[in-house]
Amino acid sequence: MAMMLEVCAFPKPGNVDRCHDYEDTRLEHFLASTILARPALEMAEGKTSGPGEIIHRAVTLTSTHRGGNTHFGAFILLIPLIMGDGIEGARRLVAQTTVDDAVEFYRAFQATSVRVNPVDEIDVNDPGSIDELRRKGLTLYDVMLHSAPGDMVAREWANGFHLTRKAADLLKQFGCGQEAVVETFLFLLATEPDTFIIKKHGESVAKLTMEHALEVRSGLRDIYDLDEELIEQGINPGSIADIIIASIYIALGEGWEWDC
Amino acid sequence: MAMMLEVCAFPKPGNVDRCHDYEDTRLEHFLASTILARPALEMAEGKTSGPGEIIHRAVTLTSTHRGGNTHFGAFILLIPLIMGDGIEGARRLVAQTTVDDAVEFYRAFQATSVRVNPVDEIDVNDPGSIDELRRKGLTLYDVMLHSAPGDMVAREWANGFHLTRKAADLLKQFGCGQEAVVETFLFLLATEPDTFIIKKHGESVAKLTMEHALEVRSGLRDIYDLDEELIEQGINPGSIADIIIASIYIALGEGWEWDC
Repeated sequence: MAMMLEVCAFPKPGNVDRCHDYEDTRLEHFLASTILARPALEMAEGKTSGPGEIIHRAVTLTSTHRGGNTHFGAFILLIPLIMGDGIEGARRLVAQTTVDDAVEFYRAFQATSVRVNPVDEIDVNDPGSIDELRRKGLTLYDVMLHSAPGDMVAREWANGFHLTRKAADLLKQFGCGQEAVVETFLFLLATEPDTFIIKKHGESVAKLTMEHALEVRSGLRDIYDLDEELIEQGINPGSIADIIIASIYIALGEGWEWDC
Repeated sequence: MAMMLEVCAFPKPGNVDRCHDYEDTRLEHFLASTILARPALEMAEGKTSGPGEIIHRAVTLTSTHRGGNTHFGAFILLIPLIMGDGIEGARRLVAQTTVDDAVEFYRAFQATSVRVNPVDEIDVNDPGSIDELRRKGLTLYDVMLHSAPGDMVAREWANGFHLTRKAADLLKQFGCGQEAVVETFLFLLATEPDTFIIKKHGESVAKLTMEHALEVRSGLRDIYDLDEELIEQGINPGSIADIIIASIYIALGEGWEWDC
């Protein structure tokens, strides 16, 4: 439900939404992933495997369409949140992850198109990388701590799901339904440099996007114009979208109303 | 997947799609139903109950949001098609339905907002209606035969899923993905009076809608204009949408590509 509600919210400047596709990744790809991921989300609920293996499973299940990697970052957040039955439990769970979890996570990366190596010195495309993880005894938590400075999704593991918590609170403060999702998205876009944008376009573009989002929030810029502009330039705040999905999941569990 | 692909296809004149909501029923309601229905669809796959009970379960599961009855007609088609593993098996299955199936179907009707009584002389809102069904020994197939003249979904049970078969073939002839869905929808809209429109607006409106759809297919009318016009007047071809969902399900099983 959280994955569905996030992708349907409109307008979300720069991202796929109900009125915008990217050429290679369309609304149906995001929604197909929502449907296809279900067995992995049920594994998380039943805690039938470790988080690394379940993330790997979710990525595998959702890599069967041509839309590419739609929800990798979202699964990195959702799966511990589901397994831990909320933020408190997820904090404990991520700290207890194992080397096997890290290995499965690397395998998940290898199963999809890779944008960045979680641990720079261990190339995910190198078949020897898994031996290297084992030799160094790195857990999935270690991998995330290492990635945290440059990746706001990994950072959630490191900081106790800080931004997920904040965004879930914002959703409730902004009211209910799709409008609250859009407001929360725009709030994060104005206050947090999106690390997916940084990886693709550099830090200055991410900073400029924050300024533009702030202008929208201040009534100085039209949200639809910003949406068109970002989509035209391929500037999609993908990591903030992942945080929003996690925050919708948490907010729904705390009684937030999607349907109003 | 079939339910998701149908509602996302755009433009589908008069119906909810990715760029159009009705005031009470929005895109998220249709997609939520897609997610919420899953346990019932899995019951159908496992054949763990009779078709009447599974239809009742699907309607109950998808009645938890405020969007009303989004997929009742679709379930009447999908559930025998899933249980029968295709049209041949569904034909046999519907002919073998029981009085208990009819009772469960009436209970499903009672659980949602009712637009029409499946058997005129047995009012679904009358608590005695179920005794009446039992007294007369009516099976669910009998109920559908009775409804067939005025309801194109029930008619599929009576005629061996004729229109579902035709629409699945059209999907394949029109190619792949969302464009094929839109073309198939428009083809049916031009050639079949939608019985949901007839129930709501009368036969002449249904006929006029067919003419307008034919004008679109002939290049004499813009599809977006027709879409706006129908939505403004609340003319939504809901039964054709149900047939399209069933036909996407069949076509997917026969190798039709949604993702191109």
